[in-house]
Amino acid sequence: MTKRRTILKHLAVGAAAVAGARLPKFYTGRKKERLGIALVGLGYYSTDLLAPALQLTRHCYLAGIVTGSPEKAERWQKQYKLPERNVYDYDNFDRIADNPDIDVVYVVLPPFMHKEYTVRAARAGKHVWCEKPMAMSVAECQAMIDACRSNKVSLSIGYRMQHEPNTQEIISFGKNKTYGGVKMISVAAGYFDGRKDHWKQKRSMGGGAMFDMGVYPLNATRYVTGEEPIAVLAQERTTRPEIYSEADETTLFQLEFPSGALANCATSLGMSMNYLYVTAEKGWYKLEPFQSYSGIQGSTSRGIMLDREIPNQQTRQMDDDALGILQGTPPMVPGEEGLRDIRVVEAIHRSATEGKRIVID
Amino acid sequence: MTKRRTILKHLAVGAAAVAGARLPKFYTGRKKERLGIALVGLGYYSTDLLAPALQLTRHCYLAGIVTGSPEKAERWQKQYKLPERNVYDYDNFDRIADNPDIDVVYVVLPPFMHKEYTVRAARAGKHVWCEKPMAMSVAECQAMIDACRSNKVSLSIGYRMQHEPNTQEIISFGKNKTYGGVKMISVAAGYFDGRKDHWKQKRSMGGGAMFDMGVYPLNATRYVTGEEPIAVLAQERTTRPEIYSEADETTLFQLEFPSGALANCATSLGMSMNYLYVTAEKGWYKLEPFQSYSGIQGSTSRGIMLDREIPNQQTRQMDDDALGILQGTPPMVPGEEGLRDIRVVEAIHRSATEGKRIVID
Repeated sequence: MTKRRTILKHLAVGAAAVAGARLPKFYTGRKKERLGIALVGLGYYSTDLLAPALQLTRHCYLAGIVTGSPEKAERWQKQYKLPERNVYDYDNFDRIADNPDIDVVYVVLPPFMHKEYTVRAARAGKHVWCEKPMAMSVAECQAMIDACRSNKVSLSIGYRMQHEPNTQEIISFGKNKTYGGVKMISVAAGYFDGRKDHWKQKRSMGGGAMFDMGVYPLNATRYVTGEEPIAVLAQERTTRPEIYSEADETTLFQLEFPSGALANCATSLGMSMNYLYVTAEKGWYKLEPFQSYSGIQGSTSRGIMLDREIPNQQTRQMDDDALGILQGTPPMVPGEEGLRDIRVVEAIHRSATEGKRIVID
Repeated sequence: MTKRRTILKHLAVGAAAVAGARLPKFYTGRKKERLGIALVGLGYYSTDLLAPALQLTRHCYLAGIVTGSPEKAERWQKQYKLPERNVYDYDNFDRIADNPDIDVVYVVLPPFMHKEYTVRAARAGKHVWCEKPMAMSVAECQAMIDACRSNKVSLSIGYRMQHEPNTQEIISFGKNKTYGGVKMISVAAGYFDGRKDHWKQKRSMGGGAMFDMGVYPLNATRYVTGEEPIAVLAQERTTRPEIYSEADETTLFQLEFPSGALANCATSLGMSMNYLYVTAEKGWYKLEPFQSYSGIQGSTSRGIMLDREIPNQQTRQMDDDALGILQGTPPMVPGEEGLRDIRVVEAIHRSATEGKRIVID
């Protein structure tokens, strides 16, 4: 038994004693230094963003992988010096329950697989980080939350922006009413996706602009206002109907909040755009880009520059989440946050389908 | 007969010979140096913007006024050294037909009066400049256009932005596809109006955000794309229902263009906002503010600054329009332009009332 395993075992006993849990979850007793992360799904985001970011994290590290591709398994194992025992495929994934090297399972699969792998990870007693959009429906999101709760593991959604300092600054403007109450938000996120047969072009797999990119503008309206939308008016449009026959290429949606704040939002897989404009009672503030992987910057009507740069957003996000688990504090973006977005996404889809304003219950 | 009058008379003969007109209209023969302008309606905009601007114009000058207030008449007459014969009230206004000092009647009244005074001015044989919004309905706009046409006078709508150099630059981007085709526009114009019983709070007088400010974002989407909207989805909202029971405090509207370009627009009398964001195929460009009386500025994704400052927008607008008349060229923003906006405003009102997307015929 390695020294790490010994420590984990001690922690397990302590945590189980505190939480009355079957398996070690929140390490509120002695501190484990770093959590072992297993990435599930080794596509572009895991390969180009998360794995490199996990080389810079202080509170967690890349401990394992889950992939259906033997070729990828071999390549990653070699590149990141992963022990054979920490490499899983989708069939033997559930055995991860017995692997004390893995503390967190990060689900980086297409959205239609999020629920299944989150529930399986929770049942394996692992904390779960799940990419956005959280899942395909409110019902799936609720099942994920329930599974994590009943298995006493935490659940974080992989929105990055709440961990980004300029975004945190504008969130604080809203909370403190630095510029008075928020009145109007204009926000857009999109990129040109030239692919024709990717899951991002299939709604049944969680594709389409609204699922893929639209949750960012939506999430932004919620963290900027600190409120939940009460109504939505939306339409979907496409200039490439041969590709976007099922999923939405572009969605425009208007949101209404209890305070009277309004939002004009746009998202697209057919054009590149990335800005967040906030009109408040006593001024404005903006970020542009507001959601890209780097270079988030902006300014305010008082001439304040919002230009704090951090080395790596994903590193910050995963370190925040890992530290939260290590310290036993709630995640910054828990599953409930992801669910709230999907509730609005469902209303947006309904509004676009029915061609009318939908009041959100 | 003054020298000016003699010149006018000569011009009249020349123009009549060319155009076969009853009265002098387009001075395509010998050039008159400056046109005499009569302002109709001496509210804030005439007082604080147009009259001062007319002190700086090269091709026109403040020659007369039309007002229902004897007190204002006296004050203006004194301040601007206006001859008694060039001061009218609303009853004797039609006698302006006999006044060769007045070449152009500028209608600066609340919108519900635009049609009447435009038609009366046209019948008096005067060119007409009319403030935005052009009128209350497409039918009124058409009547104004018809009256000017049948009386062989020109009709300009007082949108300023087509005369503003940074705006002209972004219009040229669209025409030349400098950044590729326009894909998406996000545009908003509004201010906080604290008044409770002004005509701007009465839709029947041409008030409400859409009529008062909303035509700017709308007009911008049309000059940016160079296209006419084919469909609109809109809603009206208010946070002050006790004031905005009849007119709209805030209107959000989405527009769709034949090319597939889309627009998210907002206008309000409840908040201050002023920006125009254009997403194109190969980059973006923006103006912020895009519609204020001064300080129009912006930038593009290629790092080009749009920051040409002119001394006075209203001066530029009136000089452009006066020069057009003097040179016999068509107005930059003719009545037809104003009508096209009102056609969309009607669709926006209908969409907001019926709660659904309206296809514009």
